[in-house]
Amino acid sequence: MNDKLENKIAGIVGNILDDYSKGRDIDKINSFDQPDKNVIIGILNKLQIIIFPGYFKNKQYKTYTVANNLSMLVEDVLFNLTKQIALVLKYDSGFQNLSSEEIRDRASDISIKFLSTIPTIREYISTDVQAAFDGDPAAYSKDEIIFSYPGLYAILINRIAHELYKLSVPLIPRIMTEYAHSVTGIDIHPGATIGKYFFIDHGTGIVIGETTVIGDNVKIYQGVTLGALSTRGGQKLKNKKRHPTILDNVTVYSGASILGGETVVGKNVVVGGNAFITRSIPEGTRVSIKNQELSYNYDEKNPVQKAEFEQDESWYYII
Amino acid sequence: MNDKLENKIAGIVGNILDDYSKGRDIDKINSFDQPDKNVIIGILNKLQIIIFPGYFKNKQYKTYTVANNLSMLVEDVLFNLTKQIALVLKYDSGFQNLSSEEIRDRASDISIKFLSTIPTIREYISTDVQAAFDGDPAAYSKDEIIFSYPGLYAILINRIAHELYKLSVPLIPRIMTEYAHSVTGIDIHPGATIGKYFFIDHGTGIVIGETTVIGDNVKIYQGVTLGALSTRGGQKLKNKKRHPTILDNVTVYSGASILGGETVVGKNVVVGGNAFITRSIPEGTRVSIKNQELSYNYDEKNPVQKAEFEQDESWYYII
Amino acid sequence: MNDKLENKIAGIVGNILDDYSKGRDIDKINSFDQPDKNVIIGILNKLQIIIFPGYFKNKQYKTYTVANNLSMLVEDVLFNLTKQIALVLKYDSGFQNLSSEEIRDRASDISIKFLSTIPTIREYISTDVQAAFDGDPAAYSKDEIIFSYPGLYAILINRIAHELYKLSVPLIPRIMTEYAHSVTGIDIHPGATIGKYFFIDHGTGIVIGETTVIGDNVKIYQGVTLGALSTRGGQKLKNKKRHPTILDNVTVYSGASILGGETVVGKNVVVGGNAFITRSIPEGTRVSIKNQELSYNYDEKNPVQKAEFEQDESWYYII
Repeated sequence: MNDKLENKIAGIVGNILDDYSKGRDIDKINSFDQPDKNVIIGILNKLQIIIFPGYFKNKQYKTYTVANNLSMLVEDVLFNLTKQIALVLKYDSGFQNLSSEEIRDRASDISIKFLSTIPTIREYISTDVQAAFDGDPAAYSKDEIIFSYPGLYAILINRIAHELYKLSVPLIPRIMTEYAHSVTGIDIHPGATIGKYFFIDHGTGIVIGETTVIGDNVKIYQGVTLGALSTRGGQKLKNKKRHPTILDNVTVYSGASILGGETVVGKNVVVGGNAFITRSIPEGTRVSIKNQELSYNYDEKNPVQKAEFEQDESWYYII
Repeated sequence: MNDKLENKIAGIVGNILDDYSKGRDIDKINSFDQPDKNVIIGILNKLQIIIFPGYFKNKQYKTYTVANNLSMLVEDVLFNLTKQIALVLKYDSGFQNLSSEEIRDRASDISIKFLSTIPTIREYISTDVQAAFDGDPAAYSKDEIIFSYPGLYAILINRIAHELYKLSVPLIPRIMTEYAHSVTGIDIHPGATIGKYFFIDHGTGIVIGETTVIGDNVKIYQGVTLGALSTRGGQKLKNKKRHPTILDNVTVYSGASILGGETVVGKNVVVGGNAFITRSIPEGTRVSIKNQELSYNYDEKNPVQKAEFEQDESWYYII
Repeated sequence: MNDKLENKIAGIVGNILDDYSKGRDIDKINSFDQPDKNVIIGILNKLQIIIFPGYFKNKQYKTYTVANNLSMLVEDVLFNLTKQIALVLKYDSGFQNLSSEEIRDRASDISIKFLSTIPTIREYISTDVQAAFDGDPAAYSKDEIIFSYPGLYAILINRIAHELYKLSVPLIPRIMTEYAHSVTGIDIHPGATIGKYFFIDHGTGIVIGETTVIGDNVKIYQGVTLGALSTRGGQKLKNKKRHPTILDNVTVYSGASILGGETVVGKNVVVGGNAFITRSIPEGTRVSIKNQELSYNYDEKNPVQKAEFEQDESWYYII
């Protein structure tokens, strides 16, 4: 490297160092006090192996007995999760005066509580696999669903993150669900509460907000938003119920939006594609957009008989 | 680790082991009998190098002559693909009584047949690159398309997976297309049949169902669904034509849905943004939503002259 | 491997080698002359560490003083970026007659100019973090935004890529933004010009075209398109303003499309969910779709009182 270039680099480095001293949030510098996203993704991968022991290989441990392998996986998750939780408890004002040893103990307790919920998570995810198989004619086997369906992965990560959210762990649950969002295009906040037999088909573009409550046997297609009516209040709306409640046996077709914290969608409701719902819907109703008005134009170079194109009055279900 | 913690871990492990013994699908435990998603992704990466030899580097092999390098790549794909196919043939009832040697031979035959289709895949993908360049004013070169366009990547993986689907390989084609879905937000089932000069722009949120048939020179934008009218029949609908047929030279703008196994979109049709189509459209038609009714409100703090805002009668094309 | 299999492999390899000799764009073979996507992603990861020094760990360097660590990161980015830029300058006709040494010098100059913009990038991204915190009641801390919000990541990569785009670097800016698109589902062309305090919520499915101009304090939700009216002109439209201009303090709710190079959205405008805008909107206007007509059907097995369901006249804001 020549002297001139070295000087330029020194100038650039100096300017960035000056920039670090402006006291903004982005100017924090001790990165070793922060949670590590890659470690958190590693924890998720190990939890996936624990939850589906016959589906995802464990590259690190070569032991072949199930019990030994499981022990090592559980200890590994416990060790790493405790460490990550200890790093984020400082975001909770209630923990700011504790010693680092006390923080470590609390983090360990939380991790133990979380790990104890694995059989419950497995009970729920088993029903989700069944719901996907029953609901999708393109599914050739349940194994195909477990190996490849993005909807099942997004639900799995929500079920894991939701347990940590209920234990009031800051930051980590959201890092987990945003990782799933990145992998699947499905954005489920860890605060959302979801019943059994939940089926997401295709899934890209789905948004499910923090205070959403979903019953059992609910089916949701790509592009659906379960959202808030307005977020103009910004931080003032924190902790208020802003997102809808969906009761049992509801189907929401693609592109529909259901909005508002007081909106309750009753049992057995079917919401048609692209419907925009801001009021509660009573039990058993099927809501759909009235026939969309389409205009038809014919290319002069390709004259064709004008056909009858009234839209069907019947229901449209999109997959 | 103290004794108390060790006891807690032992308790957690014991409960999970008990949970594994419930006989559900998720309780399978022999993971070494299952296909490996990471190996399948590795196969896709090597096929991408074989198909675009000048664009993607091969990190594993240092040989510099094209022929030697290609030989090694082909042998590597053959070896790994045969192994993965042998693992999934058990999902096909016709193969359940064969010896593992017979299974291995069939898997090898299928892999050889698949590898023989590479020149055909290259012929098609070459037209797709051309279609993207011709159709997108934001494309500065064909190399930019090959390096960075998610639409081209999704089509490439569909063309690969579709060949394996035609050879009746279970599971692996879907793992491949769901990997592409994860990377691109574009969900094309491996069963979909797609002609030459196919162009997907932007692509996020596109869904193309299993029994869709697409002709030559078709252009599709983000958020388009080529789907089924209803999947209430679930598994009973398997193997029926549930998704539409799109003939040559059709353009479908963003957010449109075209639904139903009997729906045929004729040659040279243009479908406008957000249109919801459930009936066949004759050749040469341009279909669009009639002008959307918009309401305009003016903020009292920002009084402005009410302008004339009728929507244009002309066509709207969205990119 | 038996002889028969070896012959088959030789046949496949021979056919593919023949196929490489057809002279199409996809038949280029010297991959060592091409930019390397993985190196470019590595550059982005290092820039993310430089821009948020306290948030993302640097696995390669173990030095703990900020200044030394920063120096090494900057030199590393400079070295790799210079090399990648030198490889792509051949795509610019103005550089085709230069010697490789001259190309290298130009590439180094461009890299130095780019690195000098880091404090400006940091100034803008700091306002984006603030805008996300102020605008989202689900945000528990600014650190959560920096660690996990896909919208912030997409903006960060756009701000980096846009600086390289302004320096006329071919290919690399688009590889960068398509990487962000892959990670976030948010597709922002590197050519788009974006003001301070930009907030993207959820984000999946957003498309922002090459010639879009966005003012300060703009908020955009999932599924929004800022696009072109028609791209039928294909390559003839290159370098024309095809995408809209959005002035300060505008909010665009989910699923809305704003199209056309002459479309200007005035200050303080609010565009409602799913609105389809192809004309300029004057300052202070709130535009929304007139009430969507919905039809309600009741399942006979679940008779319920028909309730009053007129859609509210008030504004709907979707998150």
